[in-house]
Amino acid sequence: MIDAATLAEFLRREFPQSRCTVESVDAEGVWMAHPVGEAELRPGGTVSGPVMMTLADVALYGAVLARVGLEPLAVTTNLSIHFLRKPSAAARVLARCRLIKLGRRLAVGEVWIYSEGEDDPVAHATGTYALPGSSSR
Amino acid sequence: MIDAATLAEFLRREFPQSRCTVESVDAEGVWMAHPVGEAELRPGGTVSGPVMMTLADVALYGAVLARVGLEPLAVTTNLSIHFLRKPSAAARVLARCRLIKLGRRLAVGEVWIYSEGEDDPVAHATGTYALPGSSSR
Amino acid sequence: MIDAATLAEFLRREFPQSRCTVESVDAEGVWMAHPVGEAELRPGGTVSGPVMMTLADVALYGAVLARVGLEPLAVTTNLSIHFLRKPSAAARVLARCRLIKLGRRLAVGEVWIYSEGEDDPVAHATGTYALPGSSSR
Amino acid sequence: MIDAATLAEFLRREFPQSRCTVESVDAEGVWMAHPVGEAELRPGGTVSGPVMMTLADVALYGAVLARVGLEPLAVTTNLSIHFLRKPSAAARVLARCRLIKLGRRLAVGEVWIYSEGEDDPVAHATGTYALPGSSSR
Repeated sequence: MIDAATLAEFLRREFPQSRCTVESVDAEGVWMAHPVGEAELRPGGTVSGPVMMTLADVALYGAVLARVGLEPLAVTTNLSIHFLRKPSAAARVLARCRLIKLGRRLAVGEVWIYSEGEDDPVAHATGTYALPGSSSR
Repeated sequence: MIDAATLAEFLRREFPQSRCTVESVDAEGVWMAHPVGEAELRPGGTVSGPVMMTLADVALYGAVLARVGLEPLAVTTNLSIHFLRKPSAAARVLARCRLIKLGRRLAVGEVWIYSEGEDDPVAHATGTYALPGSSSR
Repeated sequence: MIDAATLAEFLRREFPQSRCTVESVDAEGVWMAHPVGEAELRPGGTVSGPVMMTLADVALYGAVLARVGLEPLAVTTNLSIHFLRKPSAAARVLARCRLIKLGRRLAVGEVWIYSEGEDDPVAHATGTYALPGSSSR
Repeated sequence: MIDAATLAEFLRREFPQSRCTVESVDAEGVWMAHPVGEAELRPGGTVSGPVMMTLADVALYGAVLARVGLEPLAVTTNLSIHFLRKPSAAARVLARCRLIKLGRRLAVGEVWIYSEGEDDPVAHATGTYALPGSSSR
């Protein structure tokens, strides 16, 4: 298993444009976060959907890498997200991703997204990653 | 129906952080685009998944607004995307979104994403928007 | 909250062709089951995908009804399922559905499907139900 | 490419419980159908969701087989469906499935479902199939 600092450093190289941070890594998955500021808000004070999708995708990627090793060739094959509640404009968004299947060629993960400090999730995503050897894209 | 210039101006206000542009609006839907530069690439020269998800979400939003009017309260309830091929690192990504259902409370759209100048799509998305009056988030 | 016997009786009337049974109802959701026999198997001894999709759809419906009352007009607007492992040919399939959002117009639920007696899920689904008043279909 | 009669015979063996029929096979995909009678209806005269999901799954399978050959080991890894309109109680449901990606390990297809004789689709699905060699289930 990759530790949080190693994963964080790898993601900074892989997704240099991403502002996602690795909060922790454990045997079941990862916690990641995204800051929320002017750039992440829509009128009405909602965190924009693309910010949550970005966080979900990176969290899935992080959870896969934490288990299979730092493999830049793993690619998302699909991602599906439900937006459940309006996130807070005044808190970071946190993502908890757990892998629910890790096969030789495909990994499937589940992501719950929260406004930091609140119990009810703001979004739920599932996604599939193709592991190297697979011609997924 | 809203014209392209009006939609573009509205989106600049709504998603000021977005770099998506409105290419055209017609009776069936919209064409939108996203530039591809350093910030949109992953190692290996692939356009990052979040860029395509962002474009898909904004294109769905644009297609809904073009039909129902400039309604900032429409919100995505879910979005599902399949990544099909590796996009070109040297071309913009274009999205064609058509509404496949427009009910009183829900709109459903389909999005095909292409690397500009190529025929085969790089991604396919579907998404649902809740129209005002609905407590979708 | 509707109890299991009341829900079971309602579903027998609504989905008379369905062989799904209500196992239990609690504050968070429902457990339902589907028998597995010759009619549910594919060559190779796998439970067919449609059986699991049917169970997921009915479990979502049951979880919604258990909370909002016996409302035949609730309709599925979308359902997404990931198949994770090969189910046993020799056991019933069980579904645990929990609602993850219950709004005025939309309900979203999550379903885990298991082969009875095993810990690892064989499928995971999410789905959205439009509640009456909404023109979802 | 497999012809319609050969595909139909194979599906009768693979999904003996299925009532889906192969209408045609062409270079882009397949047309399949499902009869609608008492067993397929819900109160209110709607074709049940599971019938449409079953048809979508079998149509995806048929479209994959028509291109890669009669391969009983291809398995669905995920399927996502949007229900768009209330289907007619008095007509068969037809599915048009086209493959939108055919890689070495994964195939992705799109399915439109119609009530026979009507132009507007009643449902839209996308699904992924893992091709043999891949440990998808």
